[in-house]
Amino acid sequence: MLENMNEKCAVVGIFGHEEASKLAYFSLHSLQHRGQEAAGISSSDGKKLHTIKDRGLVMRVFNEEKLATLSGSSAIGHTRYSTAGDDSILDAQPVFARYDLGEMAIVHNGNLTNAEEVRNGLIKKGAIFQTFMDTENLIHLIAKSAKDKLTDRIIDAVKKIEGAFSLVFLSRKKMFAMRDRFGFRPLSLGRLPNGGYIVASETCAFDLVSATFIRDVEPGELLIFEDGKKPKSIKVFEATPKHCIFEYVYFARPDSFVFGQSVYQTRKNMGQELARIKPVEADLIIPVPDGGVPAAIGYSQESGIAYEMGIMRNHYIGRTFIEPTQEMRDLKVKMKLSPMTDIIKGKRVIVVDDSIVRGTTSRRIIRMLKEAGASEVHMRVSSPPTTDPCFYGVDTPSKDKLIAANMTTQEICDYIEADSLAYLDEVSLLRSVDSDLDEDKYCTACFTGKYII
Amino acid sequence: MLENMNEKCAVVGIFGHEEASKLAYFSLHSLQHRGQEAAGISSSDGKKLHTIKDRGLVMRVFNEEKLATLSGSSAIGHTRYSTAGDDSILDAQPVFARYDLGEMAIVHNGNLTNAEEVRNGLIKKGAIFQTFMDTENLIHLIAKSAKDKLTDRIIDAVKKIEGAFSLVFLSRKKMFAMRDRFGFRPLSLGRLPNGGYIVASETCAFDLVSATFIRDVEPGELLIFEDGKKPKSIKVFEATPKHCIFEYVYFARPDSFVFGQSVYQTRKNMGQELARIKPVEADLIIPVPDGGVPAAIGYSQESGIAYEMGIMRNHYIGRTFIEPTQEMRDLKVKMKLSPMTDIIKGKRVIVVDDSIVRGTTSRRIIRMLKEAGASEVHMRVSSPPTTDPCFYGVDTPSKDKLIAANMTTQEICDYIEADSLAYLDEVSLLRSVDSDLDEDKYCTACFTGKYII
Amino acid sequence: MLENMNEKCAVVGIFGHEEASKLAYFSLHSLQHRGQEAAGISSSDGKKLHTIKDRGLVMRVFNEEKLATLSGSSAIGHTRYSTAGDDSILDAQPVFARYDLGEMAIVHNGNLTNAEEVRNGLIKKGAIFQTFMDTENLIHLIAKSAKDKLTDRIIDAVKKIEGAFSLVFLSRKKMFAMRDRFGFRPLSLGRLPNGGYIVASETCAFDLVSATFIRDVEPGELLIFEDGKKPKSIKVFEATPKHCIFEYVYFARPDSFVFGQSVYQTRKNMGQELARIKPVEADLIIPVPDGGVPAAIGYSQESGIAYEMGIMRNHYIGRTFIEPTQEMRDLKVKMKLSPMTDIIKGKRVIVVDDSIVRGTTSRRIIRMLKEAGASEVHMRVSSPPTTDPCFYGVDTPSKDKLIAANMTTQEICDYIEADSLAYLDEVSLLRSVDSDLDEDKYCTACFTGKYII
Amino acid sequence: MLENMNEKCAVVGIFGHEEASKLAYFSLHSLQHRGQEAAGISSSDGKKLHTIKDRGLVMRVFNEEKLATLSGSSAIGHTRYSTAGDDSILDAQPVFARYDLGEMAIVHNGNLTNAEEVRNGLIKKGAIFQTFMDTENLIHLIAKSAKDKLTDRIIDAVKKIEGAFSLVFLSRKKMFAMRDRFGFRPLSLGRLPNGGYIVASETCAFDLVSATFIRDVEPGELLIFEDGKKPKSIKVFEATPKHCIFEYVYFARPDSFVFGQSVYQTRKNMGQELARIKPVEADLIIPVPDGGVPAAIGYSQESGIAYEMGIMRNHYIGRTFIEPTQEMRDLKVKMKLSPMTDIIKGKRVIVVDDSIVRGTTSRRIIRMLKEAGASEVHMRVSSPPTTDPCFYGVDTPSKDKLIAANMTTQEICDYIEADSLAYLDEVSLLRSVDSDLDEDKYCTACFTGKYII
Repeated sequence: MLENMNEKCAVVGIFGHEEASKLAYFSLHSLQHRGQEAAGISSSDGKKLHTIKDRGLVMRVFNEEKLATLSGSSAIGHTRYSTAGDDSILDAQPVFARYDLGEMAIVHNGNLTNAEEVRNGLIKKGAIFQTFMDTENLIHLIAKSAKDKLTDRIIDAVKKIEGAFSLVFLSRKKMFAMRDRFGFRPLSLGRLPNGGYIVASETCAFDLVSATFIRDVEPGELLIFEDGKKPKSIKVFEATPKHCIFEYVYFARPDSFVFGQSVYQTRKNMGQELARIKPVEADLIIPVPDGGVPAAIGYSQESGIAYEMGIMRNHYIGRTFIEPTQEMRDLKVKMKLSPMTDIIKGKRVIVVDDSIVRGTTSRRIIRMLKEAGASEVHMRVSSPPTTDPCFYGVDTPSKDKLIAANMTTQEICDYIEADSLAYLDEVSLLRSVDSDLDEDKYCTACFTGKYII
Repeated sequence: MLENMNEKCAVVGIFGHEEASKLAYFSLHSLQHRGQEAAGISSSDGKKLHTIKDRGLVMRVFNEEKLATLSGSSAIGHTRYSTAGDDSILDAQPVFARYDLGEMAIVHNGNLTNAEEVRNGLIKKGAIFQTFMDTENLIHLIAKSAKDKLTDRIIDAVKKIEGAFSLVFLSRKKMFAMRDRFGFRPLSLGRLPNGGYIVASETCAFDLVSATFIRDVEPGELLIFEDGKKPKSIKVFEATPKHCIFEYVYFARPDSFVFGQSVYQTRKNMGQELARIKPVEADLIIPVPDGGVPAAIGYSQESGIAYEMGIMRNHYIGRTFIEPTQEMRDLKVKMKLSPMTDIIKGKRVIVVDDSIVRGTTSRRIIRMLKEAGASEVHMRVSSPPTTDPCFYGVDTPSKDKLIAANMTTQEICDYIEADSLAYLDEVSLLRSVDSDLDEDKYCTACFTGKYII
Repeated sequence: MLENMNEKCAVVGIFGHEEASKLAYFSLHSLQHRGQEAAGISSSDGKKLHTIKDRGLVMRVFNEEKLATLSGSSAIGHTRYSTAGDDSILDAQPVFARYDLGEMAIVHNGNLTNAEEVRNGLIKKGAIFQTFMDTENLIHLIAKSAKDKLTDRIIDAVKKIEGAFSLVFLSRKKMFAMRDRFGFRPLSLGRLPNGGYIVASETCAFDLVSATFIRDVEPGELLIFEDGKKPKSIKVFEATPKHCIFEYVYFARPDSFVFGQSVYQTRKNMGQELARIKPVEADLIIPVPDGGVPAAIGYSQESGIAYEMGIMRNHYIGRTFIEPTQEMRDLKVKMKLSPMTDIIKGKRVIVVDDSIVRGTTSRRIIRMLKEAGASEVHMRVSSPPTTDPCFYGVDTPSKDKLIAANMTTQEICDYIEADSLAYLDEVSLLRSVDSDLDEDKYCTACFTGKYII
Repeated sequence: MLENMNEKCAVVGIFGHEEASKLAYFSLHSLQHRGQEAAGISSSDGKKLHTIKDRGLVMRVFNEEKLATLSGSSAIGHTRYSTAGDDSILDAQPVFARYDLGEMAIVHNGNLTNAEEVRNGLIKKGAIFQTFMDTENLIHLIAKSAKDKLTDRIIDAVKKIEGAFSLVFLSRKKMFAMRDRFGFRPLSLGRLPNGGYIVASETCAFDLVSATFIRDVEPGELLIFEDGKKPKSIKVFEATPKHCIFEYVYFARPDSFVFGQSVYQTRKNMGQELARIKPVEADLIIPVPDGGVPAAIGYSQESGIAYEMGIMRNHYIGRTFIEPTQEMRDLKVKMKLSPMTDIIKGKRVIVVDDSIVRGTTSRRIIRMLKEAGASEVHMRVSSPPTTDPCFYGVDTPSKDKLIAANMTTQEICDYIEADSLAYLDEVSLLRSVDSDLDEDKYCTACFTGKYII
């Protein structure tokens, strides 16, 4: 139940379907877990782009009437996570612009590491910035490129930016999909039942609209969708994959395939690895729902220790503004999670979570289990200690808030009041996601501090 | 994922705590799964009763300001399920009345089988009914009783009604809790950390407010709470227990204890029984979340077949009013549930659900699993075929809508397109919930048509 | 701009129109000025009554879908004023009941003076009261009446109550309209264009639905509407009219006729009388909008002093929760009213209002006019000093809050910082509303303290 | 009751008050009549600009918490009218930008006539446009100016645009106010009680915040507000006034002074002129509220014919989505306006309105008056026939929708079913607003088609 790290966005693009914006809507719904603060869709009817974006969940932002105004056979969409208290509806995507070649709209998942530098350069040349989104850089770079054709301009533009980006561009006639050379964030290509195409941050978006997976957009690849043709591929950068390994650990939906692997399966593998390298005698294994479920199943299968749904997640949870009474302890976590007292009582329990960020939630969970009568609580984490913030598109607390950056594992164990604590090590994590053990293919900066850029 | 049968309500009572209405609020939140349509609380400050009730979830109906107006050290609360389209806010509870002994408020979980008869009798004597709730009968019966004292009047009143009722009454100075002689619906007694008392439909409500379970209110028992004393018990009826077995199968929260048993454990037992009596060769077992989870775990533990979270439940689900495109099949179930394709593909799958009501959802799930590549899908149901409607407080479709009332198991199997289908039999169900196999203690009318009253 | 006295309600009844509830809806909209807190409609389809009621303006409570459920050719409706902070949706009307003769619904404008006595009597006989509305007495009295027929029971019931009431009753087949013997509150009868009938608190409701005025329901009269017949009239009480004179002064809409007179014309007459008896030399006359407009026009026409719209009313006003800065004086009144500085500057101004209740608003207005440069401000009030609270259906402050009950006219003049202050006297007020000067026909208790009952 | 022409916006600027955004909020509330679709405020705390803007009325967009985030001692604000169906929250103002000199925000009332040309020029040079507002041109022009100082850049920028503009700019340290050389739209300067300054579209905004009027910002003048100094004035253009005469006829609030005149007084003058040049024998004069009130008073005073409030405006009006029954005629106008039947019946009535745009509303009003019994209805309009659309900041229907562009006065009279119809002529209108009869000072293009630019 990782609460303090969040994927910043999801993107989707639909090309060649007369109900393109409707397919974008349903796809975004599948990607809602990647951003709940705002949602938007731009469509093109061949002559004009139409954009609707607003705060709120996908289902709240759109209705049948609004979707009807988003006419045309191509559409791109976005869901967005934003930090609490930030009220800037203007920072929702798609970003739309009129420029010398007409109109365009862009959606972006990722984070540019040279955004400020690029922006300052553009501003010096007379550009104005109306939002605080990195994405605004891109439309400026495209608009200012000396090239004649949009494709060339996009290539020009992406060569000037650094960092993590999975982008989808929409013009009146074409759609473009592009991934940075490292392929930090996922982006997959699929075929719609009617012959059109879809690109989306995760393959779970394909399932709802009955699309079939073709392949991932390659790191450094630009795909160009034009009517009546197969998407054309241009290798803008040499691919040097550095996939975000945390997509496997936590972000992606378990029913998605990202970077060529089943998310659910990799999480199970993590649990199995964990069982092998960090065994502990116990009566049962329980996950912290929902994130810890696959790893806990994997741990159970490997260790032979019984898997139990020892903690229930409450689905009616929302924000309450009612202050608890003084006798009510750990209300915040208890409104979300409840222990199966009968199962836990007097038992030695292994509790599996995907990660520990600040440690406060883990402590509350362990206290709750002990109150429920667990004789021992052993925490097992299906990823290495999270020691460093992400600069490639994930919202993380600053280093001083990351408990593993400031305490040893033993200190954390004491802090969270566990009887033992063990993390998965980096090599085992890699083994879980990639049987070739090709560690170079993954970005593990949040565990290692080794930033690529 | 039983969608067509619903517990009608939950009740709670708090006595002897200066923040009684706040405790009622949090308790109701824990009982939200028993009714999401309306919520209400009445409190007593010793001189006057205060009531707030409205449509919506508990968290929506109340805020800090409203709770502040519900002053006093005793409070009762209610959440309510209601059939779609019914807009009668007036049918929310508590039901409040001024009468010759002062003021009272009542909350009720259950269903009176002689409600119409009682109402007609009262109406003939000049009573008026302003709502369509059975509960209104009770305040009339109490008001019209010839006895002098409220306790005697309550006894008088409950002797005139038949059916299922777990009731909590609030007067200015006292609180009363009462269960019908059969104890159809659960009602438990707990102690608050400050020495006060709580009664609630399920023990999960105790956990959030740090209360400890004392015992169930007995079938036929009336508990009287009065300041500074232990609750006084009066045996109004001889207890002849007929506990609703469906509380174990589906209604109650898995972390609750009802009728003296852990709900989670009984569900696991059902899965184990099912594995014993209805084995099938398969590669993996998956639950229909969330209802099927404990039984699937039990089945797995008994059979040794691997448990997998093969179907994911989407938590961002709400009502969409957007029509799908023609290519989008089974949208309704797919927006809620997604298969783990990688796990399922080419596998023989056992899917475990708690019950089948109409069969349509089961069919959609099985189709989805087959589309995901399952080579075989075997459906196992952790309860007997649901053949008869409930008259004791559960909202069920009429008999002609219950698939098991109209088809043989083989016909159902064909209809839902499963490779095999098996139900738990009644005896095994009983064995799962009660090691004494005391079948007389349970109401199984929804499986057997044997109605007690 | 009387802010502290409010008509409590409006009622309407429609009989013999296939879109009865829709006509009730539009009629209630016309009567919205008589109550903005809650609204409700009950309709009968001949077999069953249907009721929807909720907090809020008529336009907010109902939509096309909800009105569609209120089927049938007869309907009654209600709008309600309620004191701030009171959250009891249950006290909205119509009041619905099932009783021994079937179903009925009632709407009520007025106030029963023996409500508590009646209620206590009923409670002693075993009745229960679920709301705090006087109206609930009536359904009990009808239900408990020993008579066989509803008509006789209604007569029985109204003979037991005292006070002010304009009532409309709906049964499955019939509609009834009844006024107390004094005719405190208005109730008029009209004919719908299709031959059906309408009764409403004010004739302004007739205009919107293209109905024509027939006559007032007489004090003490019961009208019975039955299919295919002219309404039958029964004189239940001898009429001894005591019409609320404040309907003319402030409550009724100026385009209504109440008690046989044009409201606008009587208000103009008040202004003319005021000019005659309380002349003052001045440069111009301005009304406090909107209440003071007709009287100010009358004053101008009589005195020859120029009428100016010297104070503007802001229509975008709502509740603001933003605290003003310390320099912002009299914000509350200034957000509603603005002076025409150019017209007022250096002028001797007569400002006309319909009444003064607490005096605070008048003081703010006069200060505002002086700040705008008026050299003199003479206040003229088109009614006598309001000295006594109303017990017949108007929400008034208690006597200690009524400035005229506690200060002489000169003291009030000083308090509101006017250069002179004069009220219309009672005789002149009567002359304004009734050329026959039949003072017995009107209730003037709020000016005289002479309560009829 | 002009429904088809709308002022597009209002602007306000506050400088030198520690609660600047709060003053902007209240000022915008006073200017709400100039735009109800969206509202926004930007403030500067000296280091950073803060912006909040959203759809809806001022009171809905802001609350205490939001205003608190708009910290700093300077603030600018905007209310906006937008055409129905347009959902682009992005087109709300202020427009904010980061550029090479830092941050700025702009609010704009008016319309640029060379907006497309300027935009195309900017786009050719690589600029991107993210909204459809003319105002976006300005921030580009300022950002791209070769000058070093913001003041010089603003001068540079406004020299490149043509059309109507009353602008307020906010930078971190300064505020600027600017009007086009023609002074089409109003903009006034005032002093706050604490010594700070306010600029606003109308002086009515000054009254609420206790500011005092200093003078109008001159046509072609740029005012620069800098801490601790009197605003510096730069004459950017030679003033050649062409004030929008329709501000007097309809747009401005009657309690405002615009272009040096009291709006209320000029409207009264129009009525007096109308009485002189277009007399007609009649029994009474009534205004169409609220727009026609001052002119009707003027007509009455000049002609000696009695003024009556013969039509009432209903303040509870909102949008209803309930279809009327077939018998309900002219529902739309009747829900807003009601006739005083008693006053009108059998009378020869002069009805005064400020203008006629499409003629449909006038026809409904006249029909309503005739149904109410008027023996004759003479329409008098306090402005000349509206024959041409506005290109300087007013939303007008296209020429083919303007009845006076397509019919003679007699034809219009027949269409609206009046007994006579007369308009104020252009010279008399000028005389009403300016005793010097300096016709060159006013833009009368909507009556004459003589466009300045």
